Amino acid sequence: MIAFITDWGEDSYYVSSVKSVIKNINKNAEIIDITHNMGKYDIYSYSHILLRASKEFQENTIFLVVIDPTVGSSRKAILVETNQPKYYFIAPDNGILTQVKRKYGINKIIELNNKNYFWKESNTFHGRDIFGAFAAYLSKNINFKYFGNELLKINELNIKNPFYNKNNIIGHFLYKDSFGNLETDVENNNTFNFDKHSSYVISFEGKEYPLNYKEYYSECGDDKLLMHFDSSNYLEISIYKGSAASYLNIKNFNTKFEIKKIK
Amino acid sequence: MIAFITDWGEDSYYVSSVKSVIKNINKNAEIIDITHNMGKYDIYSYSHILLRASKEFQENTIFLVVIDPTVGSSRKAILVETNQPKYYFIAPDNGILTQVKRKYGINKIIELNNKNYFWKESNTFHGRDIFGAFAAYLSKNINFKYFGNELLKINELNIKNPFYNKNNIIGHFLYKDSFGNLETDVENNNTFNFDKHSSYVISFEGKEYPLNYKEYYSECGDDKLLMHFDSSNYLEISIYKGSAASYLNIKNFNTKFEIKKIK
Amino acid sequence: MIAFITDWGEDSYYVSSVKSVIKNINKNAEIIDITHNMGKYDIYSYSHILLRASKEFQENTIFLVVIDPTVGSSRKAILVETNQPKYYFIAPDNGILTQVKRKYGINKIIELNNKNYFWKESNTFHGRDIFGAFAAYLSKNINFKYFGNELLKINELNIKNPFYNKNNIIGHFLYKDSFGNLETDVENNNTFNFDKHSSYVISFEGKEYPLNYKEYYSECGDDKLLMHFDSSNYLEISIYKGSAASYLNIKNFNTKFEIKKIK
Repeated sequence: MIAFITDWGEDSYYVSSVKSVIKNINKNAEIIDITHNMGKYDIYSYSHILLRASKEFQENTIFLVVIDPTVGSSRKAILVETNQPKYYFIAPDNGILTQVKRKYGINKIIELNNKNYFWKESNTFHGRDIFGAFAAYLSKNINFKYFGNELLKINELNIKNPFYNKNNIIGHFLYKDSFGNLETDVENNNTFNFDKHSSYVISFEGKEYPLNYKEYYSECGDDKLLMHFDSSNYLEISIYKGSAASYLNIKNFNTKFEIKKIK
Repeated sequence: MIAFITDWGEDSYYVSSVKSVIKNINKNAEIIDITHNMGKYDIYSYSHILLRASKEFQENTIFLVVIDPTVGSSRKAILVETNQPKYYFIAPDNGILTQVKRKYGINKIIELNNKNYFWKESNTFHGRDIFGAFAAYLSKNINFKYFGNELLKINELNIKNPFYNKNNIIGHFLYKDSFGNLETDVENNNTFNFDKHSSYVISFEGKEYPLNYKEYYSECGDDKLLMHFDSSNYLEISIYKGSAASYLNIKNFNTKFEIKKIK
Repeated sequence: MIAFITDWGEDSYYVSSVKSVIKNINKNAEIIDITHNMGKYDIYSYSHILLRASKEFQENTIFLVVIDPTVGSSRKAILVETNQPKYYFIAPDNGILTQVKRKYGINKIIELNNKNYFWKESNTFHGRDIFGAFAAYLSKNINFKYFGNELLKINELNIKNPFYNKNNIIGHFLYKDSFGNLETDVENNNTFNFDKHSSYVISFEGKEYPLNYKEYYSECGDDKLLMHFDSSNYLEISIYKGSAASYLNIKNFNTKFEIKKIK
């Protein structure tokens, strides 16, 4: 199984070019699109997104990750085998695998530089010619030791962990989903003591808004800001039948926020 | 075959999470996406959309329907086996199956509450953990009698049927397609007596517009409002190379309209 | 393998209707979506897009091409077998195959008029009932000689070839990709003598802009207009981390442009 994520959008034929090459190399390859349509977040956000999306997949899934704003620079193409669970990530070595490494651990890193496995040598379509081609060969069970030389470490982003105690959180907005819900880096570890009957405020960039804690979107009135833990167990800021991203006028992501109980 | 429809958009990874779980449960499952991108219509519109989209599929297709604005409320998750043709619908019991029931009839209703088949117990991702999981087990030919207890009826929406005679129609706008064509609930039953050389008016919400009857989009001038029966044999209001939805400034759907012959 | 392209958008269920019919006819058919989301370009642009997208696919691929603005008119539905490589194109005979013919050559043309292979006879959904159905039968290895009578030529668009010498180009903007990069009809044939240290201007519609030649997007500053040859070896006009289409205010495509070296 190849799980495929890019930031290309599906309003071009590039995604199909990669799939075609994969099928050329391994006609039995099975491909699930994670998404190609989340847009132009930076690799900080995508590092989190990739971690979350990957969690649903089976062991031995090959993640084909083409979030590559510095394509053509000297950044390497790499294969990473993770530890627990055992997954394979084929990606540029630009920091995109930072969160995956922190969560799963890394067994092995290979630089994808054996040109015998390249599809073509092109200046700008590494997604097809390098990443896609190696994913296809790996899905055919070609041993990755032939793909290139081993590396000892990957490039990592300086991602700050969120901080929290019983009644306070310092976290970061990562991205919004198609409903305008704001996704954060705050995972529920059961130290929180939120309750439905208390009042909270969220503050960021000098602004402050009241919000409530709810278990479901629909428990709140239509226009009320609410926080809850989403199906992946991360804190989400939402408005039932509305867009929290618009309401809070969030333009940039990786913005720090603080949540405090006020009574 | 699992035919999958949601209103989530493809600008998030949620659709892939469901597919991944389906493939975990049944690696041979075949999935066709009906659409995830039609947007935030209400369940009245989606009840019609689901009926139309379903018509093209083969007997025994499993429809995985996650149009679920009240997720987390007490609405049930259900499996419905229809009568003619025999299809399986896995959906929330929120009225979304109203039109399917009227057209196909219902053989059997099961409440999907046997937690042995749940993927996880999550508060807000029933699409993956309940609907997706049961669709996958059904696609493996697990007998649905194990999925939960039988119910005697589904919740139905109060959907008004359109009215028509030879020269008049009272119907409802249901949704627009990507061209801005307005889709309606008026099915051609050959009682209509429209002709290309007569003049008609359409009125709704106190406004009135002239329109013509044509067989093809391209028979009309570029800016003229036209009505015709679409490929599914429903009345459609269109503008050739234009957007009827913009021209008529349609913001809300399920709006009643009336069409009259004037000469 | 069926490679499927339309201009319908994925915000309706029409694409799934075609896939469902294909699977009805040939349950083993494999379908890759080229794209359905590039929007409403004219058939000049799509003729180029189809050529480019097709290049990545294997011999014997069946291209199901439903770019059909004059559906319902007297334009024919055709199957074209190309020469080198051998591909099959199932498309309306409206000129969409002009560039494919010029590049690959044509072996055989069949008019798809044997109604035994139609799915339904509908006025407006030829994509499903004619094009989709014949693609499915061809993917089952039904000999296309049964599909209809042979034709001697296809309709061709009057597409002007670009002109160029060492330091000058006259070409056409064809479409933009999701990044706002402008794609052109100018293929690199190694007669160009561009270099990174010279200065160029691009002019069109009475306007003129400076631009540079680069190998990679990221070699330029963020706001600078640049030209380079893309992964398909066509000239592309771009802005690193920006939209050249917005910057140049390109509204219409098939616009002629000229590039000159100035020092």
